[in-house]
Amino acid sequence: MTSQMQREGITGLELRSTVTSDRRLILSLEPVRLRPPAAHEVVVAVQAAPLNPSDLGLLLGPADLATIAVEGPAERPRLTAAIPEHAMASLSARIDQPMSVGNEGAGTVVAAGSAVGHLLGRKVAMFGGAMYAQFRKLPAADCVVLPDGASAADGASMFVNPLTALAMVETMRDEGHRALVHTAAASNLGQMLNRLCLAEGVPLVNIVRSDLQAERLRSAGAGHVVDSSSADFAQRLEDAIASTGATIAFDAVGGGGLVDAILHAMERSLSRPAGAFSRYGSTTLKQVYLYGSLDPGPTILNRTYGMAWRIGGFLLTPFLDRIGPAGVARLRDRVAAELKTTFASNYTATISLREMLDPRHLSAFARRATGEKYLVDPSLP
Amino acid sequence: MTSQMQREGITGLELRSTVTSDRRLILSLEPVRLRPPAAHEVVVAVQAAPLNPSDLGLLLGPADLATIAVEGPAERPRLTAAIPEHAMASLSARIDQPMSVGNEGAGTVVAAGSAVGHLLGRKVAMFGGAMYAQFRKLPAADCVVLPDGASAADGASMFVNPLTALAMVETMRDEGHRALVHTAAASNLGQMLNRLCLAEGVPLVNIVRSDLQAERLRSAGAGHVVDSSSADFAQRLEDAIASTGATIAFDAVGGGGLVDAILHAMERSLSRPAGAFSRYGSTTLKQVYLYGSLDPGPTILNRTYGMAWRIGGFLLTPFLDRIGPAGVARLRDRVAAELKTTFASNYTATISLREMLDPRHLSAFARRATGEKYLVDPSLP
Repeated sequence: MTSQMQREGITGLELRSTVTSDRRLILSLEPVRLRPPAAHEVVVAVQAAPLNPSDLGLLLGPADLATIAVEGPAERPRLTAAIPEHAMASLSARIDQPMSVGNEGAGTVVAAGSAVGHLLGRKVAMFGGAMYAQFRKLPAADCVVLPDGASAADGASMFVNPLTALAMVETMRDEGHRALVHTAAASNLGQMLNRLCLAEGVPLVNIVRSDLQAERLRSAGAGHVVDSSSADFAQRLEDAIASTGATIAFDAVGGGGLVDAILHAMERSLSRPAGAFSRYGSTTLKQVYLYGSLDPGPTILNRTYGMAWRIGGFLLTPFLDRIGPAGVARLRDRVAAELKTTFASNYTATISLREMLDPRHLSAFARRATGEKYLVDPSLP
Repeated sequence: MTSQMQREGITGLELRSTVTSDRRLILSLEPVRLRPPAAHEVVVAVQAAPLNPSDLGLLLGPADLATIAVEGPAERPRLTAAIPEHAMASLSARIDQPMSVGNEGAGTVVAAGSAVGHLLGRKVAMFGGAMYAQFRKLPAADCVVLPDGASAADGASMFVNPLTALAMVETMRDEGHRALVHTAAASNLGQMLNRLCLAEGVPLVNIVRSDLQAERLRSAGAGHVVDSSSADFAQRLEDAIASTGATIAFDAVGGGGLVDAILHAMERSLSRPAGAFSRYGSTTLKQVYLYGSLDPGPTILNRTYGMAWRIGGFLLTPFLDRIGPAGVARLRDRVAAELKTTFASNYTATISLREMLDPRHLSAFARRATGEKYLVDPSLP
């Protein structure tokens, strides 16, 4: 079987997301033939790929999920949904082009080029897109061999969340801050960041949206957890920020008043020491990075925090470019070493490629509910 | 007279702004006795001090000007206005403390310390606060002697606007941009920036709010003027940004959707070259600095410009700190040399200290209307 694969290549299904010029999103499973791997390439049978919030933008675009319709046979469904007219402008570069989706995943090497034959049969983690597929061909250099005893599920989320958590802590240090604030802190990434900050002795203010989430983080050792649904949120946030000295925040929510509330609480905490009135507020820079958009509505800034404030988008890739290949290798090694501890992920459910196109499953993972996370296993029938 | 002054000091009126614990703003003129100047100090009879937007925050705070009342005798009026309860928190550090106001001004040296006697009788420009006063004592080093033929009015605005315009162009260059966008571009500062950019060959997109303002800038040589009140504003802004390559903006408005519109237009202009769909938008950093708050309402960000964007407060003082004394001296020399050309200011009206407390005048300058600017002459009766 494997030697036949080496000669003839292999065909598998791959998920495609297409935005059409007549304003429809189409999700489909397409058979794709992979030619045999080149000398330094491998073909991996994908067994686990997470549905990260960062995948959902490419997968679903701004489609109106209330308009979902399913076409085609049950074993090869084709899902469509309408796209609002105002959203089409931002999609012009992807119209009528079927896009592959899935940033990261893990699986077993089923074919290997002549220079990397030692990888055959090994479990590897991968980064680089197109992971919602039965098979993925890629350079061996883009794979990390999983430690003994680690399953494909253990290695599925080795890149996006762990590297993002590490990037947050390194950015905090690089930019001269000593403590940080994180929102949607009960997410998989949030739990990871909490463990990382505990291990590194970095004070962390966790903002969550319910009592249950607060409890989950406290029982994982979090020292500062603030519930944005509580009546005294503003005061508690200010107290937590004052006691940690946090002047940088990473926000996954984006829309609404949360960014504003964080900057306001930072300013109030910095203005606590008695001193002369400063008409431009504290001179200490207050920074919020927006790395997600759980609330796609507008960000509202009341600007009640003087002039020394800054907000902006935060993305992993430019950070990795900045630290360079040696820096990235250092972080990857650390993730591999702590894969089942600091950087462990938890999943709500594991679904097949076909189930991704099932409206019930799709509606569930499209909700982006904090603490709920789906894993796709393309090897499931 | 002058020698008596040297021995006994001098008494003059000074404007004070006080926020009381019972939620009132009080503006009053208080007699202040200045002791004779020390060796390196001078006493200046202030003859011209502008009412900059940056003075109005300290002068008026968030007082509700619909509640203005005038007390006291006509020659020493005392003006009061109510402060909304929600606004008091940000004022805690100035409660019941009479504040001096007026960032910059110019006048004639009427007393000089032993080491700086050569300044007696000279016209000087000053920076350092408390300029809404008949007399101001300060270190001679904080004065700039005006060039021959320049009046106090010519030198009144030598610091805030000219250094801000220069700071914008230097910041643009330091941060790697090659063209810039400016809002409220018909202001005194905007006209100055337009002349500066023309002189330096820096492409500038001027955003104004009326046809009349657009005409004024065009007749001053501006190449790119966009009127935000026109129906096709978004498209024209995108075109102007595309043709200049502007990726940094300085915004005086703050509230509403203008910051968002600028970032959106920058992103659209950067996405014009045909290329592959990038789910995170252009990778070119788009920067907007907010240096004013003509619209005190919330800033609304729809975040339709990928992840490479940043906004934040912009203040002159940290910029001057960053370039250091030698850098500041270089900029000041340039301003003095071009005081009547590049860095000239125009004033709508000249008023006395007493007229500052006249509700009609106060309502007029408190409107912060672009292109209207008031000069205070404390030597007027």
